[in-house]
Order: sequence, then C-alpha cells, then structure tokens
Amino acid sequence: MNTIEVCLTPELIHQHALKGKLVVVVDIFRATSCIVTGLANDVEAIKPVAEVDECKALGTKGYIMAGERDGIMIEGFDIGNSPFDYQSESVKGKKVAISTTNGSKAILLSEEADEIIIGSFLNLDAVAQYILQKKKDVVIHCAGWKGTPNLEDTLFAGALIDECAEEMKPDRDSALVAHQLFIASHENMLGLALQSSHAERLKGFGIEEDLEFCMEENKYPVVPKLVNGELVS
Amino acid sequence: MNTIEVCLTPELIHQHALKGKLVVVVDIFRATSCIVTGLANDVEAIKPVAEVDECKALGTKGYIMAGERDGIMIEGFDIGNSPFDYQSESVKGKKVAISTTNGSKAILLSEEADEIIIGSFLNLDAVAQYILQKKKDVVIHCAGWKGTPNLEDTLFAGALIDECAEEMKPDRDSALVAHQLFIASHENMLGLALQSSHAERLKGFGIEEDLEFCMEENKYPVVPKLVNGELVS
Repeated sequence: MNTIEVCLTPELIHQHALKGKLVVVVDIFRATSCIVTGLANDVEAIKPVAEVDECKALGTKGYIMAGERDGIMIEGFDIGNSPFDYQSESVKGKKVAISTTNGSKAILLSEEADEIIIGSFLNLDAVAQYILQKKKDVVIHCAGWKGTPNLEDTLFAGALIDECAEEMKPDRDSALVAHQLFIASHENMLGLALQSSHAERLKGFGIEEDLEFCMEENKYPVVPKLVNGELVS
Repeated sequence: MNTIEVCLTPELIHQHALKGKLVVVVDIFRATSCIVTGLANDVEAIKPVAEVDECKALGTKGYIMAGERDGIMIEGFDIGNSPFDYQSESVKGKKVAISTTNGSKAILLSEEADEIIIGSFLNLDAVAQYILQKKKDVVIHCAGWKGTPNLEDTLFAGALIDECAEEMKPDRDSALVAHQLFIASHENMLGLALQSSHAERLKGFGIEEDLEFCMEENKYPVVPKLVNGELVS
C-alpha cells in the first residue's frame, strides 16, 4: 500500500524524503487555488518564481506578472493573487509568472520529488483520482503562512487523505492530525477556515469572496503539473 | 485577554517569541508524564540534560540516572523512561538526571521563557489552573518525535486550550488545529493516541501499560517548574 504524508509547513520539508515521490503542493488562500483556476480557464502555463525581480524579468518576455506580498498585489504587477484575476480575458492563452509569500516557496522547495502537482479544494477529486492512479508514495506539502502551519492547508490535506483512505496509508502523525481535523469539521469547513488567522488577515483586504471561492469543492477537473519549471494542465 | 500558542515541534520553536511568556513543555509518551509522576511521588528534583554523558557525570554526584534513546533505557542507567520507574521506593527523596530523545530537548530549547512548567494528562487540571492564575501569555511546546509533530502532544495542547478557552485566546492556526483535534476526539483520546506512530513504536517494547497510564487525566495535582535548571514541584 502506498503511503501519504503531510508536511505542515515548508520549514519541516527536510523531514520528508521526496525522491521518487509525488508531491502535492497546497496553498488554499490563495496561490494554488489561483493556479488551478487559471489553468482551468485557459491560461497556457504558470511559472512559480521566488523573487519579485524574477517576475519582472519574465514580464519583459511577455509573461503576465502576478503575485502578492503579505496579501497585497505587488506594485507594477498585472494581477494580484485573487482567483478572480485568473478568470479574466486578459490572461487567457498567456503565460503567467507568479511570486507569492508562501505558495511559490513550497513549490520550489519540492524540487527533489519525482513529480509535483498542485492541489486545492477546487480540484480535490481530480487530484485524488490522479494520485490513486499513479500508485506512488505521496507527500502533501502545505505552504502554511510564513513558515507556520495553517488551518486551511491542513484541512485540505485531511480531505485528500480521506478521499484516498481505502487505498493509501497515512504515514506519521501529521497525517493523522490532518485527517482527524477534516473528519471533525468537514460539515463546516468554510466556517472553520474563516476562523483561521490567514482568513482574519485577508478579511482586512475586503476579499471575503476570494476565501469563499477557494473553499468550493471540485469546481475544476484540472491537475496542474510542474514540467520544465512551469505548471501546465 | 492572554494568548495561548502551540508549537507543534521543537524545530518550529524559533517562530514563537518566548520572552516574558510561560512555556508548558509536553512530551506525553513519556518524558513529561514521568516528570509529573516522579515529583508527585516524592522525587526531590529532576534535572533535564541533553547528553548521556552529562547524566553519567551527575550520576557520580548521587543523581539517579534516567533516560532513553529511541524508547530504550540507556545502558548502565538506573531507570528508563517509564512512569512506573518513577513510583519506586528507590527514587523517593532523590534527585534524578534525565535525558530523553525529545522531552529534554524541548525543555532546554524553552530557556528564553519567563517560566517553564511541565504538562501531561496526569496533571492537566493543575496546569490549567496554574496558567489561568498567572495571567501570562502561554506557549505550549510539544516535544514531538525527532522534530516531527506528534498526535498525543497535539491532543494534550488541544485539551489544555479547551480548559482555558473562556479566559485565553488561541494565537495562530496551530492552536486552532490542536483545539479542533481535541474537540473531535476527546471521547476516544486513548484510542486515538494508541494509533499514533509513537505508540506503534513503543508497543514493540511491550509497554502498553505505560501508554495507558500516560493518558490518564488528573491523577496528580503537581505542577513541575524549572528552577535553577532543575524541575521541582
């Protein structure tokens, strides 16, 4: 039986051997929800980068510059970090370069893995089907918030474990904690996620709609994969 | 309202400012359960040390040498890491030097705090009363397992938050996760704790009795405190 692990924050990723494994990167509020939304809405590819300057350099090559720092759109960029930005006509058929506080980092820190895909509630079922079919050991890499574990990414990890529970074995206690959290709260996930400290921070920016959107399940069947440094569907 | 934070593993303790705060160190299986049991059973003091050699040096000064590595008693030591060892006549009135895989480390890494106390299910109520009366911000420092979060310490953190919920505010999502985990499982904590990977490891050593003992609630009213490098009641 293949195993499924949960890394609660990028600061603990060194505890997880990634070689030969499939990594699912998760940043529910909002990077991975944006990536899934973009690729489901005809964005051609999304390139995660660590630094703002890398984004700007790619901007000169025709990439849409996307991203935020501490929840706020970066000055001079084309779009921010809202899933609604990724549904606009202006991004269709384009490539996007994205730099965010937490999500980009988690993707880049997963590079040792055999394969990196992107998870969110928006494509939960599609991700579950994908990893069950791959028959590989899986690490769910939660982006968290500035190195600390967060509620919404942990909830997603629990939801994904729950979908795979009959065919995969949770490995280590962080997986058990995430699964129990999901079992306890799956009937009120939005309510719980809105109590998270990340949601509290983002509410200050008047983007409650974003948060509700990011908690919708199975809206898109895409599974973004990292291929040559770019996420494609 | 004072805050209550949860650090899920010593590897994340740098994310928590400890100055001026009260730290509750937790290592349910089994170091902090042993410390509480010992001080409730007339051990004079318990000195946590990092290395085996420090324990041995203290042994020559009359300390009982206690500890384990990977769950097994250290060769040449007087006692291991079972709470039953700490109830024997041989330790009453004595000082104990303890070195364990996870617990000692968590205590030593908390040194910046204003005050360090020891928590376990065995003294849960006493710890809750103590911190409510102190009116300080609290960090619950979970020892985990070799740097990874574990289930039983996280459960304890949730239980302690629950006891203090009316008078303290959970700070950051790790506190919310721990609290939700407790709410979800408080009727079957022993069952859940026995599923933990730590319990799985320890079962191999035939010490199920230890694990059940460590999950008993409010057996002892003591609150061990670190004073001049030694834990006393």
